[in-house]
Amino acid sequence: MAISQTNSPTNFAWATLLEVDAPEPGRRGSRLHDRLARALRTAIRDGRLTEGAAVPPSRALAEELGCSRWVVTEAYGQLIAEGYLAARVGSATRVSWSPDTAPPRPHTRPVPAPSPVRYDLAPGLPDLRAFPRRRWAEAVRSVTGSAVHYDLGLPDPAGHPVLRTTVAQYLRRSRGADAHPAAVSVCAGVTDGLVRTCRALRAEGIDDLAVEHPGWGRLRDAATSVGLRLYPVPVDHDGLRVDDLARTPARAVIVGAAHQFPTGTVLSPARRARLVRWAREVDGYVIEDDYDAEFRYDHHPVAVMQGMDPSRVFLLGSVSKTLSPALGLGWLVAPAATTPALRAANPVAAAPPVLDQLALATFIDRGWYDAHLRAARRRFRGRRDLLVRTLGAELPQARVSGTAAGLHILLHLPSGTDTPRTVRTAAAAGLRVADLDDYRVTDSADRALVLGYGNIGDTEIPAAVALLREALAARTGVRAMDA
Amino acid sequence: MAISQTNSPTNFAWATLLEVDAPEPGRRGSRLHDRLARALRTAIRDGRLTEGAAVPPSRALAEELGCSRWVVTEAYGQLIAEGYLAARVGSATRVSWSPDTAPPRPHTRPVPAPSPVRYDLAPGLPDLRAFPRRRWAEAVRSVTGSAVHYDLGLPDPAGHPVLRTTVAQYLRRSRGADAHPAAVSVCAGVTDGLVRTCRALRAEGIDDLAVEHPGWGRLRDAATSVGLRLYPVPVDHDGLRVDDLARTPARAVIVGAAHQFPTGTVLSPARRARLVRWAREVDGYVIEDDYDAEFRYDHHPVAVMQGMDPSRVFLLGSVSKTLSPALGLGWLVAPAATTPALRAANPVAAAPPVLDQLALATFIDRGWYDAHLRAARRRFRGRRDLLVRTLGAELPQARVSGTAAGLHILLHLPSGTDTPRTVRTAAAAGLRVADLDDYRVTDSADRALVLGYGNIGDTEIPAAVALLREALAARTGVRAMDA
Repeated sequence: MAISQTNSPTNFAWATLLEVDAPEPGRRGSRLHDRLARALRTAIRDGRLTEGAAVPPSRALAEELGCSRWVVTEAYGQLIAEGYLAARVGSATRVSWSPDTAPPRPHTRPVPAPSPVRYDLAPGLPDLRAFPRRRWAEAVRSVTGSAVHYDLGLPDPAGHPVLRTTVAQYLRRSRGADAHPAAVSVCAGVTDGLVRTCRALRAEGIDDLAVEHPGWGRLRDAATSVGLRLYPVPVDHDGLRVDDLARTPARAVIVGAAHQFPTGTVLSPARRARLVRWAREVDGYVIEDDYDAEFRYDHHPVAVMQGMDPSRVFLLGSVSKTLSPALGLGWLVAPAATTPALRAANPVAAAPPVLDQLALATFIDRGWYDAHLRAARRRFRGRRDLLVRTLGAELPQARVSGTAAGLHILLHLPSGTDTPRTVRTAAAAGLRVADLDDYRVTDSADRALVLGYGNIGDTEIPAAVALLREALAARTGVRAMDA
Repeated sequence: MAISQTNSPTNFAWATLLEVDAPEPGRRGSRLHDRLARALRTAIRDGRLTEGAAVPPSRALAEELGCSRWVVTEAYGQLIAEGYLAARVGSATRVSWSPDTAPPRPHTRPVPAPSPVRYDLAPGLPDLRAFPRRRWAEAVRSVTGSAVHYDLGLPDPAGHPVLRTTVAQYLRRSRGADAHPAAVSVCAGVTDGLVRTCRALRAEGIDDLAVEHPGWGRLRDAATSVGLRLYPVPVDHDGLRVDDLARTPARAVIVGAAHQFPTGTVLSPARRARLVRWAREVDGYVIEDDYDAEFRYDHHPVAVMQGMDPSRVFLLGSVSKTLSPALGLGWLVAPAATTPALRAANPVAAAPPVLDQLALATFIDRGWYDAHLRAARRRFRGRRDLLVRTLGAELPQARVSGTAAGLHILLHLPSGTDTPRTVRTAAAAGLRVADLDDYRVTDSADRALVLGYGNIGDTEIPAAVALLREALAARTGVRAMDA
């Protein structure tokens, strides 16, 4: 529709051309002058009203629209304040803005909706169906009512003192950590904690960081985003090879001591001690990623290395593998001597939302976290056993490892297996699994899948393993039904 | 207490020396073998049990403690797995770890508790007592019950699609923005959004950023933390001086168009248009910090500049000044052409907790945000009037500016006023105020205080202004009672 750009009051068709919105009662911007201002603004932005064009005198437009003149002068005044119109004494009010002449922006693609999968054997998630919704909501409700009003002010970047105290107690009691509230920073999770730690390392003059290989890419991304150089160090059946580490120039290393990701190995007792001694020898640090250590099945959870030497070990943990990664809540325990550097190197780091922090403190303090972990450990142990048993029966040619702890295992496949194709075939059938190669930075002849059993129902495991068998059979041309 | 380190079963005093904790029923780590393991671990860490020392045979220690031998073998097994003890066949189990010989760490200082003030006239906070606790808790409760379970999985780093859609609608409707869900990133607030934006700018080859002067230090910190060079550009009564900006090498600028912090000036209509044209001319960007624009008192809120040219303007906003900074929820609307760079330059950026995102979407969609803003605008307008009136009566020598919008004003003081001392004197009396100089990077002869009226009760204003008058009088040696 073309729009008349004359200011003669005789040929207006503004009322239809401006496409004034329908009102939405109770909404901001729902009054007529707001809607008229919006319509004029849109017409100017669209180029239907071009720069220099006069808009009608307010009285004339008011008549045309059947509204009071006040409505029009309000709308004009709004657009003058915004720079779209300019008024000069003794002259018509004119359009004073033109849209960019660049081609229209390809901005209409919708945000993709999350796509649920039928069976989820990919690693990284706890049992989302078992999230304790009722108790979490009760914890939030309770603290939202009881927080003092200055808890709603600017948050302490290191975290709320109540949660720092609760986390320190929890880590002492449950993870054998040597943690004091002043050493605890609340953060958004292990990645956030690692970014903060890496910034502190750089401030202390450490630019070289060793990482486990294979390992989690997001940790590598976090370290490189801060500018650290990475040195991948192999992992064997006893965990990180400390002798190889000692040959790198790195003075810091990230290690998943309790259950390495993705191999599932547990760092051996001798290596634990050796690793902390290495940190002392090089005047460096171990960054302990205690990401899923709550789930240890053949043994009580092994205490964190951080307790062996809290002046040499940073401890990272979160509730992402125990409750949900959507909560965005984790912690960082730092050596006391590094806390000034940690603060100074992270000048704009923000703590997670305060009500969530207080809710987690309440959730732990009321014993709900322990209860949740006990139930989850029982459930995951049974599920791991079922998965290992089913894999043994259905895929006898494959071997399983890394089962002692955590929420994932390795499924070793015959050499020559086209694992990327297996992953794709499985995905097309609605089954998510991960290729061990996805966590490697160099080639390896070992073929394996990483199977997570956190986020799959027990009753789904037989069907999921059957789909996996079919995906593996499709690769070799053997029909699944004959396997 | 010294501890016997012989392994002869005849002279044990382990039961008392190990200081085994009292049980806490229902807690992790409360069983006897856990408590025994903890006591042994502590003794090794403390140096009471030194490396190489033998621990008693399990049978002997069990007798001494009056417990089953199983308890002792479990505890020993735990410490062997953790690397504190080592067992060799045919030999005693021995301590295999020694604590660092460094002096003890000064780690016992308590986390300082937040210190409430009597009267808060510092800028930066909304009315914390008016936080809509009941409705916020209801929104969280509702979404915690209704979220689908994969909403509890790994969050979309750009934010949950539901909130991105709601924010885009809100910004279109209420702020006149040209915002589509795909262009919206949910972030933790304006600082977080600025850090992400600055990383994208660097990825686009922009290393020079102009900032308003005076301006908010945290924004400068955010930009420099990403490695940008800063060019302070003066602000006058029409806002940022675009002519001065054009003389810098910067191709991007942060601007508080609706209500500059801290001067409180509103960017004039001519400058708005001029600024967007500048961005086109230099092939650069305006970063619009729309931090408190919801509160405009003499006028409807002016629409954002972003709507004038969404390909040249980044828009940052949050609920920190409308609901609470403790919520940690904000947004970033980016030009479409920059969204790939924005994503690539922020590989480990995390969205805020998903349940909070969904709660905010519900809070807005139910009309509660609009209702809250309406009530807050009314309250703040009245409070601003009261503050300006009281200052006029009590401090006639001072002049007020920046009152048209937002939650703070400037109080201009006679030249020569020792504003740092005034701030300290006021603080000692329980009154928080801020010195305009705190937001400057170069000297100025103008003396002014920045007074925020978000977080003070109407009834407190007379007493707060009286304290301020006393603090100013103390400076000159004039007794407050005589003023």
